[in-house]
Amino acid sequence: MDKPAEKSADKRPASAPSQRVEPRRLKGFRDFLPDLMAARYAIEDVIRAEGRLAGFRLIGTPALEYAETLLGQGSEETDKQVYRFKDHGERDVALRFDLTVPFARYVAEHQSELVFPFKKLQMGDVWRGENTQKGRYREFRQCDLDIIGVDSAAADIEILAAFHKILSRIDCGGFTISIGDRLLLSAMIRQAMPAATPREETEILIALDKLAKIGQEKVTGIIAALACAQNQDLAQFFAVLTAKLPSGDSDIAAIAEYVKDDAIAQTEIARMRHVIHTVRGLVTNGDGRIRLDLTIARGLGYYTGIVFETTLNDLPGFGSISSGGRYNDLASRFSSRELPGVGGSIGLDRLLAGLEEMGKIKAAQGDLVFVAVATPDAEPYAFQVAEKLRRAGIATEIGLTPKLGNQFKHADRLKCPYVVTVGSDEQQKRTYALKDMAKGTEERDLPFNALAETLAARLAAKA
Amino acid sequence: MDKPAEKSADKRPASAPSQRVEPRRLKGFRDFLPDLMAARYAIEDVIRAEGRLAGFRLIGTPALEYAETLLGQGSEETDKQVYRFKDHGERDVALRFDLTVPFARYVAEHQSELVFPFKKLQMGDVWRGENTQKGRYREFRQCDLDIIGVDSAAADIEILAAFHKILSRIDCGGFTISIGDRLLLSAMIRQAMPAATPREETEILIALDKLAKIGQEKVTGIIAALACAQNQDLAQFFAVLTAKLPSGDSDIAAIAEYVKDDAIAQTEIARMRHVIHTVRGLVTNGDGRIRLDLTIARGLGYYTGIVFETTLNDLPGFGSISSGGRYNDLASRFSSRELPGVGGSIGLDRLLAGLEEMGKIKAAQGDLVFVAVATPDAEPYAFQVAEKLRRAGIATEIGLTPKLGNQFKHADRLKCPYVVTVGSDEQQKRTYALKDMAKGTEERDLPFNALAETLAARLAAKA
Repeated sequence: MDKPAEKSADKRPASAPSQRVEPRRLKGFRDFLPDLMAARYAIEDVIRAEGRLAGFRLIGTPALEYAETLLGQGSEETDKQVYRFKDHGERDVALRFDLTVPFARYVAEHQSELVFPFKKLQMGDVWRGENTQKGRYREFRQCDLDIIGVDSAAADIEILAAFHKILSRIDCGGFTISIGDRLLLSAMIRQAMPAATPREETEILIALDKLAKIGQEKVTGIIAALACAQNQDLAQFFAVLTAKLPSGDSDIAAIAEYVKDDAIAQTEIARMRHVIHTVRGLVTNGDGRIRLDLTIARGLGYYTGIVFETTLNDLPGFGSISSGGRYNDLASRFSSRELPGVGGSIGLDRLLAGLEEMGKIKAAQGDLVFVAVATPDAEPYAFQVAEKLRRAGIATEIGLTPKLGNQFKHADRLKCPYVVTVGSDEQQKRTYALKDMAKGTEERDLPFNALAETLAARLAAKA
Repeated sequence: MDKPAEKSADKRPASAPSQRVEPRRLKGFRDFLPDLMAARYAIEDVIRAEGRLAGFRLIGTPALEYAETLLGQGSEETDKQVYRFKDHGERDVALRFDLTVPFARYVAEHQSELVFPFKKLQMGDVWRGENTQKGRYREFRQCDLDIIGVDSAAADIEILAAFHKILSRIDCGGFTISIGDRLLLSAMIRQAMPAATPREETEILIALDKLAKIGQEKVTGIIAALACAQNQDLAQFFAVLTAKLPSGDSDIAAIAEYVKDDAIAQTEIARMRHVIHTVRGLVTNGDGRIRLDLTIARGLGYYTGIVFETTLNDLPGFGSISSGGRYNDLASRFSSRELPGVGGSIGLDRLLAGLEEMGKIKAAQGDLVFVAVATPDAEPYAFQVAEKLRRAGIATEIGLTPKLGNQFKHADRLKCPYVVTVGSDEQQKRTYALKDMAKGTEERDLPFNALAETLAARLAAKA
């Protein structure tokens, strides 16, 4: 499936006969069949509805950007995965690998047209040439919510609450938002390894990100091998970092004690307590847990405050379906104006993969009424009946093939619960027969209004 | 704005300080500010609603395909414009230039999973490296409706009616769907120039497509220069083709007479009359005209029956905002199964550009209630008040900056019509003050239910 494409297709003259081409997709790219697509749109509708209620505004940015706009922003790992090429004008261009970096460019470019703090919602596809694995694609859709232009606990609260509200409205069997803090983690690293360079700190963060996957012993080994960690006792650092209260939260009091001489860290701890306390007060009705977990590091380079990841309670080991954090300096690459931000992404395709794995993607409900065309001469009239049903809010299919028998077979394959047959008789009498496909029964001589009302009531009862 | 990108960005080590990068977009690519994005989503919602009522199902295909899948399908002109490159695995890949060709691949690949006739709706971005001009972009969004798996007049009717219904629900000041027929046009070309090769026929169609733009004399000149047209009298061909009835329709009787010895053409004329008659019977209430116009040729190579284009009545010369036709052989490139299709696209960005030109993109209505946080200690409670308003269906912003004065300024810039101030007093008394920002008046001591009801009623009255 993944061999290099043949090059014959575009070389042949336009008038030559077509050659058969194998219908195949690129590895890591997928098609959406209707049931899966309906599930994706349903989630996007929830995000849009919650976003609107909370004052987030939808925006859009291009799929393609100048390579220099995108690269060197996330991590070296993401840089390597970027789809990058020369366009027709020999420009060095790249497909966006997330929505965050283009958003920083967008904000810098349009700052005179936006009202700050600006709350944005964006849904779009991103592309990464990473190794494909279960639930990971090279093209995937992200939904981002961000607040830019303010560095406040209120903005952090607003973002965390928005993600919680959205996920609470999706039937995903419970989730956990784990909240860490990059500023606090940096303070702890400074305390444990005062000699750490920025580069080493990044390496430590990347190593800590792997705690859940490879375990503390291996992570300790990676960190101990760094120059800054020579002769350092990392045991206390890990003991404080991984200590858990009975509630499952990190032991914030122990952390506060560990960095007690660091004024910035103390302020951040107070802010974090306030953020988590307030968010918990807002979401008591949801089926999502909020967990304080200081081991959450997040690989990307641009975070400067809170960071978060979200996991599905019923799929341990599946990984994060939504993540984000505060990034106070990202826009500074594009603008001299200070534009601190906080936000995150829902990995829509990751979430869908999780829902699929849990068997929560439903096949389409049969809610489509079928108008069968009994006689060719009645076709225009049958279309009018179908149109009237549609105007009455009833989703209606119409027979598109000549034979009535085939139309009924088609209605059956489409799982249409009801069929209305329209021929010249019906056109003359203006009454209709309604067949219940499950029961095999038929009601006759219904005038249009009775037909529409009966259908609306039965479909509503089914839903 | 369009000079080649610098390459410094991705070469610097991760720990080096950031360099400022000019925030700029690629030529022909645009950002969507919130008002324009809201307009785009509003149109997509109309398309989805009408699509659902008519039994169309949403699908998705990747942005990237093997180059061989896409190329050699539309025209040589589109082939040249395709964004094509080598991916990380040295595969020859391309960004889709329309949704039709990937759909043919999709149908062939998934034929065992689909129910035919299959009615699909797809909304997605496409990319073409064409010269940029007003209302033309290198990235643009298309909404496609197609019916595949049946060659019937009913399917043609269903598609034309669907496009008409959708456009009727968009406030675009009236539109005209011009319907031609590629089969009939081919029959006329055969009649006028029996020696025409398929290649010459394509060149004639491309020339005819330019009739409105460059005029009949120049088009005649282009066609007369072809080998097949030597010594042919093209005057009668053009006279019949361009003859108009008082209604504005092509003179179908004259065309029938012109190709009277062509049995296929006669059958097609009967079908076309039936299609247009039936569609007209369905759409009498809309503000869209249906016009029979046999000069509509459509440049793309794959059409085999009806073709259509849609123009905005108030923007003559703006060009087509929606087009399509019947393509009975497109899927045969990927499958041995016969999968005749009919469908078309709405050029969403073209349509938006038209609406912008007509001044029909509205700035956001102020329907956002603002909860101002009077005192820091009341912030958690203020968030709870905002959350309760949101659960009552009221879109609500909350103060994210510390100073109350700045919050009011922000509410003003956001055009929020009402501000609810929440401080420790309100938290204690559980009553609220509601400020009308336009009138400058304030109502005091409202309990929450009265507050929510008042706001809901006033916002509903404003809408």
